[in-house]
Amino acid sequence: MLPKKQKNLFRYIAFEGIDGCGKTTQAQFFVNYLKREGFCVYFTKEPGGVNNKIRNLLLEEKWPSKTELFLFLADRALNIVNVKREIEKDCIVVGDRSIYSTMAYQGYGGGLDLEFLEKLNLFSTEGLRPDVVFYFDIDLKTMKNRVKKHDAIESKGDSFFMRVRKGYVELLKKEKNFFLINGEKSKEEVFRSVLKIWKSLLGD
Amino acid sequence: MLPKKQKNLFRYIAFEGIDGCGKTTQAQFFVNYLKREGFCVYFTKEPGGVNNKIRNLLLEEKWPSKTELFLFLADRALNIVNVKREIEKDCIVVGDRSIYSTMAYQGYGGGLDLEFLEKLNLFSTEGLRPDVVFYFDIDLKTMKNRVKKHDAIESKGDSFFMRVRKGYVELLKKEKNFFLINGEKSKEEVFRSVLKIWKSLLGD
Repeated sequence: MLPKKQKNLFRYIAFEGIDGCGKTTQAQFFVNYLKREGFCVYFTKEPGGVNNKIRNLLLEEKWPSKTELFLFLADRALNIVNVKREIEKDCIVVGDRSIYSTMAYQGYGGGLDLEFLEKLNLFSTEGLRPDVVFYFDIDLKTMKNRVKKHDAIESKGDSFFMRVRKGYVELLKKEKNFFLINGEKSKEEVFRSVLKIWKSLLGD
Repeated sequence: MLPKKQKNLFRYIAFEGIDGCGKTTQAQFFVNYLKREGFCVYFTKEPGGVNNKIRNLLLEEKWPSKTELFLFLADRALNIVNVKREIEKDCIVVGDRSIYSTMAYQGYGGGLDLEFLEKLNLFSTEGLRPDVVFYFDIDLKTMKNRVKKHDAIESKGDSFFMRVRKGYVELLKKEKNFFLINGEKSKEEVFRSVLKIWKSLLGD
């Protein structure tokens, strides 16, 4: 059922952006769309794709920056086992966050060395990176309007999130697999943008 | 109270070896000895020096090897904050395990790349390594006689622990700060060996 070219090119799609950007909603819309189209789909999230044990540690408490980083990587190394298994089965993996969140949050946001983070990311995934990344851009005002309850990560303050957003914009410039989507618009409009890009990637 | 030469040279002493080697007992003996000698001493253990949250995850469950590695590193990055604070206060830090356990267990035992592990270790500690390492060597038979209840790490099987022990012996050859102690002997005899080395290091 999976078209051959797609099988090889777009097997792992990540949804990225700052908190409140709509990526979780859009990832769900996308999963439902792919299922309707007849694809085998595996949805995952980071942290917590396999279970919430490490995720809970991360969200309940503020940790030193490197502890936080390693907890995210520990969770990713667990998650990637399932991601690879599903790709092997020719399913499309849809990820709510990915290695790029580490670059944006712990790297650009938290000031950890970007080059070393890249190495750590690829070590944790054994070289796997998303084939397509939808980046949902919103400004901080929108984030604050949308995110009312704050976990340990979400309560890091404005200047942190300004750096994270700037980081995503840097990634957008640098990474060929990144696609910019204006996350300020309505859910339906945003999803139309997702589908437009997706279809153009498939050559439809 | 702390002799000047000691302040700079031997501020961080680690106790290493396979499970059941006696390092925890010996570290406690050593802490008590240092206290009696009038030193400010800070005892820590890995994992779990600061709290047991990450330690519990590690010991309760079997994780993929890289998840396990990153959980150890997350715990270490937390622990090292306290270790550095105590060194700054001119206390002697006594550690039940250290970066070298990662080399022995996840590296030599688990087959992860040693060079990369070394980088990860020093990233997690910001370059800090123990000044002195007491390595307690025992054979696997002794380990099995001493360790009856097994957590997720301890239940890894003979060939794993043979590689770990061999790893410690490699480290002993490579690292100048490593000192070999025969862990097969009685607690009292073993501690006499610890003190003999310690005193010779201090030039007593």
